[in-house]
Amino acid sequence: MKMSQMSKYDALNMILQSLSASSGDIEASAVVSADGLLMASNFPKDMDEERMAAMTAALLAIGERAAMELRRGKLEQVFVRGTDGFIVMMSAGPDGVLAVMCNKMAKLGLIFLDMKRAAAQIAKIL
Amino acid sequence: MKMSQMSKYDALNMILQSLSASSGDIEASAVVSADGLLMASNFPKDMDEERMAAMTAALLAIGERAAMELRRGKLEQVFVRGTDGFIVMMSAGPDGVLAVMCNKMAKLGLIFLDMKRAAAQIAKIL
Repeated sequence: MKMSQMSKYDALNMILQSLSASSGDIEASAVVSADGLLMASNFPKDMDEERMAAMTAALLAIGERAAMELRRGKLEQVFVRGTDGFIVMMSAGPDGVLAVMCNKMAKLGLIFLDMKRAAAQIAKIL
Repeated sequence: MKMSQMSKYDALNMILQSLSASSGDIEASAVVSADGLLMASNFPKDMDEERMAAMTAALLAIGERAAMELRRGKLEQVFVRGTDGFIVMMSAGPDGVLAVMCNKMAKLGLIFLDMKRAAAQIAKIL
């Protein structure tokens, strides 16, 4: 199937699946709208998608505010490192955000690179 | 002057100054308490310290919530990348946070490394 024949939803899902396939350390991924609504996701069954969408929206809002107040320009990325893994969010065009959860073994440089490519593809679709 | 003869404030300031000296791309740095109060800072005159402390506290609160809700363990680091630079926050013991603002030329790997060392020193003092 060509990209042009797919629904937006299918195309976003395909990008998320390909992103997850690129690294076994990515546990979940989602495309979220700027206001925190889930547009597509690739989640294991025991994870709560809505919780990730809500947390993504909250982190984005405060990240945007911090970047503006502290004169760091337009928000491009928010990254949260915990003792058990990472959450990475990246702008995907003006209307979307790509959010990824990784385990703590993830190689961040590679994750950032793969996410950047995926975010560029997502931006074209949205 | 030995560390043991200094006030906590002087010791924290010395660590921040040494951190800034390690990279010309660090524009400002601060030690903030877990509840967002400024403990020490190394800021250029045209920057608002209180604003950085407030934003640090807000990012920390939501970063901690996200790490918990999304099962990433205990919060260690929050990183915000804007088009004009970065904000990096790192735990410095249970009661403190080291926050740094860099310009967009900063080499992140080096900044993370230098901050990790400084955070370990700060944790000993607090």
